[in-house]
Amino acid sequence: MPKEKLSIIKIGGNIIEDEASLKAFLKLFSALEGKKILVHGGGKLATHIATKLGIESKMFDGRRITDLETLEVITMVYGGLVNKNIVAKLQALQTNAIGLSGADINSIKSDKRALKDVDFGFVGDVKKVAYDSINKLINADFTPVFCAITHDGNGQLLNTNADTITSQVAIGMSTIYETSIYYCFELDGVLKDINDKKSVVKNINSNTYRKLLNDGIVTEGMLPKLENCFDALKKGVHKVNMGNTSMLTNENDNFTTITL
Amino acid sequence: MPKEKLSIIKIGGNIIEDEASLKAFLKLFSALEGKKILVHGGGKLATHIATKLGIESKMFDGRRITDLETLEVITMVYGGLVNKNIVAKLQALQTNAIGLSGADINSIKSDKRALKDVDFGFVGDVKKVAYDSINKLINADFTPVFCAITHDGNGQLLNTNADTITSQVAIGMSTIYETSIYYCFELDGVLKDINDKKSVVKNINSNTYRKLLNDGIVTEGMLPKLENCFDALKKGVHKVNMGNTSMLTNENDNFTTITL
Repeated sequence: MPKEKLSIIKIGGNIIEDEASLKAFLKLFSALEGKKILVHGGGKLATHIATKLGIESKMFDGRRITDLETLEVITMVYGGLVNKNIVAKLQALQTNAIGLSGADINSIKSDKRALKDVDFGFVGDVKKVAYDSINKLINADFTPVFCAITHDGNGQLLNTNADTITSQVAIGMSTIYETSIYYCFELDGVLKDINDKKSVVKNINSNTYRKLLNDGIVTEGMLPKLENCFDALKKGVHKVNMGNTSMLTNENDNFTTITL
Repeated sequence: MPKEKLSIIKIGGNIIEDEASLKAFLKLFSALEGKKILVHGGGKLATHIATKLGIESKMFDGRRITDLETLEVITMVYGGLVNKNIVAKLQALQTNAIGLSGADINSIKSDKRALKDVDFGFVGDVKKVAYDSINKLINADFTPVFCAITHDGNGQLLNTNADTITSQVAIGMSTIYETSIYYCFELDGVLKDINDKKSVVKNINSNTYRKLLNDGIVTEGMLPKLENCFDALKKGVHKVNMGNTSMLTNENDNFTTITL
């Protein structure tokens, strides 16, 4: 018997920070048929509120260092403000959402990132996804909405990359479902020509990926994203899609689909 | 067949704001046998963070007026910071907690309080508790942890009194369970002599309550709390207990139990 389908959709700051974009997206997400999970980042709102609270944002090599004060702001903004507002808005659209951090139902356990040259602070690398517990919610007709926070099992919350949460949850759920990831982002997909927004590479697989790499079409910014996609596919995810939010409808087929 | 038992425990600011008290309470809560629900307020932490953010706390007659900015802070602090930290700490104690606002699984729907002489802003009066949905979580062996936020079903979150959430959830769950409320607070219980902390009235029912009122033993501060208790009892709640957190153990029987 083929596995039932499950969609895992990730949205980032560009959607969350713009009320009209968020409203339009949540309408699409609600209309999406079948079982589904939403994962959201928090965008610049956390930095904005941290600044207001007089907390300096510390960065290293473009990545945020999460000290205790910053973690508190992230927990307030991602876990509270953003997550609960998305849940309330989904309820208004008749989607029975349930907001979750990785601590809730012990859904995503992480290890605090080991100290190497830089101490990134309270940042988690995902270790274990409780797919059976998450599935209990899905089977009760609830739609999980994850914020980008996990925990270590010893009472410590940890800031965790939303793309990573998406792929790790998808990998975990693949034990039960045929999972498809939808990474919603600014572009229409992986572009052949970075200056031509419509030049979307519609399909990528392991073979064509190698050719794209050789031809220099995969840019530095896109490289870790795509490596992350192939890692998820190798670990059981069925399909990864990248594009703008309209890829969730039947009206747009101009986005990138990645398979093994 | 008698109904299965369910305990609904409420903690307020005095416990949440003090790390050692919270730790001790969560240990007691985790050790409590049987099905259970936790409801927490947020205490002065929201006011503290609002002040830091330059948001003025507006009060009328000792009650907070929740404008949009204040609601955002409450959503951050109660729904994010306090709720997620309690959940993570319960997970460390092997209690499979799940943090909820009233928007999550549409668990508690409210009406925005009607404008009379004073506009209290985004404050909700509980209208409907989805006891069947909450019970799905309990039956999946998850322990609900409610913050004091509800929603109106149209996408609007609403600040809601934690005592009210406790009694309304208890009333709703009474359809399925024999429910007992435990209001944890600063005192050991209802006191015969306000100057003698140990002079606890151990049992109160409708008849003895009338006598306590006549004798002037029920103080003004306690009156609305007790009225609220009898309202819950009349609507199906089995028992209401008031006292310090040690009433959750078998070692302390010096607290107040209220029955019809």
